Amino acid sequence: MDTALTIALDAMGGDRAPGIVVEGASLVRQRSPNVRFILFGDEKQLRPLVAKDPQLLEHTEIRHTSEVVTNDMKPSMALRNARQSSMRLAINAVQEGEAAGIVSAGNTGALMAMAKFVLKTLTGIDRPAIATFLPSMRGDVVMLDLGANLECNASHLVQFAVMGNIFAKTVLGLPEPVVGLLNVGEEELKGHEDLREAASILREGGLPIKFCGFIEGNDILEGAVDVAVTDGFTGNVALKATEGVSKFYTQVLAEAFRSSLLSRLSYLLARPTLRKVRQRVDPRRYNGAMMLGLNGVVVKSHGGTDALGFANAIGVAIDMVTFGFNDKIIRDFGSLDAGNMSRPKAAAPA
Amino acid sequence: MDTALTIALDAMGGDRAPGIVVEGASLVRQRSPNVRFILFGDEKQLRPLVAKDPQLLEHTEIRHTSEVVTNDMKPSMALRNARQSSMRLAINAVQEGEAAGIVSAGNTGALMAMAKFVLKTLTGIDRPAIATFLPSMRGDVVMLDLGANLECNASHLVQFAVMGNIFAKTVLGLPEPVVGLLNVGEEELKGHEDLREAASILREGGLPIKFCGFIEGNDILEGAVDVAVTDGFTGNVALKATEGVSKFYTQVLAEAFRSSLLSRLSYLLARPTLRKVRQRVDPRRYNGAMMLGLNGVVVKSHGGTDALGFANAIGVAIDMVTFGFNDKIIRDFGSLDAGNMSRPKAAAPA
Repeated sequence: MDTALTIALDAMGGDRAPGIVVEGASLVRQRSPNVRFILFGDEKQLRPLVAKDPQLLEHTEIRHTSEVVTNDMKPSMALRNARQSSMRLAINAVQEGEAAGIVSAGNTGALMAMAKFVLKTLTGIDRPAIATFLPSMRGDVVMLDLGANLECNASHLVQFAVMGNIFAKTVLGLPEPVVGLLNVGEEELKGHEDLREAASILREGGLPIKFCGFIEGNDILEGAVDVAVTDGFTGNVALKATEGVSKFYTQVLAEAFRSSLLSRLSYLLARPTLRKVRQRVDPRRYNGAMMLGLNGVVVKSHGGTDALGFANAIGVAIDMVTFGFNDKIIRDFGSLDAGNMSRPKAAAPA
Repeated sequence: MDTALTIALDAMGGDRAPGIVVEGASLVRQRSPNVRFILFGDEKQLRPLVAKDPQLLEHTEIRHTSEVVTNDMKPSMALRNARQSSMRLAINAVQEGEAAGIVSAGNTGALMAMAKFVLKTLTGIDRPAIATFLPSMRGDVVMLDLGANLECNASHLVQFAVMGNIFAKTVLGLPEPVVGLLNVGEEELKGHEDLREAASILREGGLPIKFCGFIEGNDILEGAVDVAVTDGFTGNVALKATEGVSKFYTQVLAEAFRSSLLSRLSYLLARPTLRKVRQRVDPRRYNGAMMLGLNGVVVKSHGGTDALGFANAIGVAIDMVTFGFNDKIIRDFGSLDAGNMSRPKAAAPA
């Protein structure tokens, strides 16, 4: 099994762990027979779950851990005290070269803190960012940062743009992704100073990026760009607002179709159509937040997802490994003149 | 006509002015027969439009203006150079007591700059904020700021919370609105320092506000609060992201119902139900952004709205006047100990 690709799984992270983690792994094995897993977690719980799928059992190694990173654990505490946890040991497996990537549905802050500590950032990257896909009117959009960095300067935003651009090229396969910077208006003079500076670097810095300038909140799902770049505070609020609107629509539609006899009848006929809509916006399809800029592939699954959603998160990790996302980052950042990534500082007096 | 309520209208602002402004005024007259208007704009265009509705003609005064504030005009330029514009003269009418409020679908930045300059802020308010209603799973939500203040300190956020609270009480008629502060997590330690300080003032400052703490982006449309408070940058992005998702859903539904013969058939039956959904989320129902904290009622209509949307924006202005929103602000801010609104500063050395 030399060509096998190994993924480390934190089997204890998430609201429905370890059940959906094992089921998700099982789903992945069905479509990607050359993937194998190292499962970190409570062996007593894991072994009977894995045993249900003989195929999975054959290609999975279970490593017993007794510690768990809980959702209310602070990142600093998790880093200090949870060194034998399923999450930490799964990350270690990537650092030690046993696994090509790690997927966890656990505590996001702890995962980022541990991954940064254990794996370190790639050369040229000051701060890793969290990215995700979203559906849009014209194909998928990559958005970053989603909460790893609440305050970002111009140079961080430019680094996010470069990483998002490479992600869209390698993983989404877009030849020339359009990159936009989230702001409160499209005019050059809008927004914070850091945003304006980042825009001017992206516009004039000679980076190999198709930068379209500032975009607004509505442009994300309207598909104006392939990569939407923002600070972690704004990105987190925008992403969650998007989730809230989706839930709202789902509920409003359900209520309307339950509101009268005629609407109940019409639902029967409209069901296949509505199912198509649900599939297109299915949050499970978009499950998997990528921690970009780390020296290793790290994917965070939504804590409340099911097996299908977790399988998609594993799929994202496999894609990042297969398409050599990190190698591409190292190559591209290496060839970039560091001066391109930030404004020239005033020379020190001789 | 002593009990008449007069609203000044900037008849030249917005993409479809002056047509939809006059038609909107006409719609308002049908439901509120004691409202009269002063229309500021090009008399030659306005007179024949108003003449179509004899009722409106009788209760409308047209004031000719030849200048127009365009959408690409910078606020500072508009303030300096557009002193004879329809927008400016309509605002002046409020300042001079001729009108109880003003509605414009024109340039937001210019409207805010002129309104601040002409009307001034209410005592106790450092910065006016832009607020709007949004639908949610449990009734309407007020969100502010939406872009008037890109960077806000703790005291600004607290003032927005107080204004939003009064708005929800007076205009929405809620006896005890629940107020939340938008953040990237619900835990007390999340987010910027200014946010945490604002939360601690709202929690412990003894203000007459039912403060529920931090909320996240999804909580807005899920109806966790009646008032969502945030800085203008985040609020603007969140609002526009919400608009983008709504457009996206509308298009995805339309595409799905056009995708096959069965789905086209089912659409015929489901149409009344889908119409109900559209009505519930109709952006025209939620048209009208309120500029709160000014010494006068100022409402901004969406630039691309139609007559019904513009009529709703006028309706919001009428409600603010009728329910005495500004009087209530003056009263409440007057009775608040200024110390409640900000952290006690270290006493100066004696």
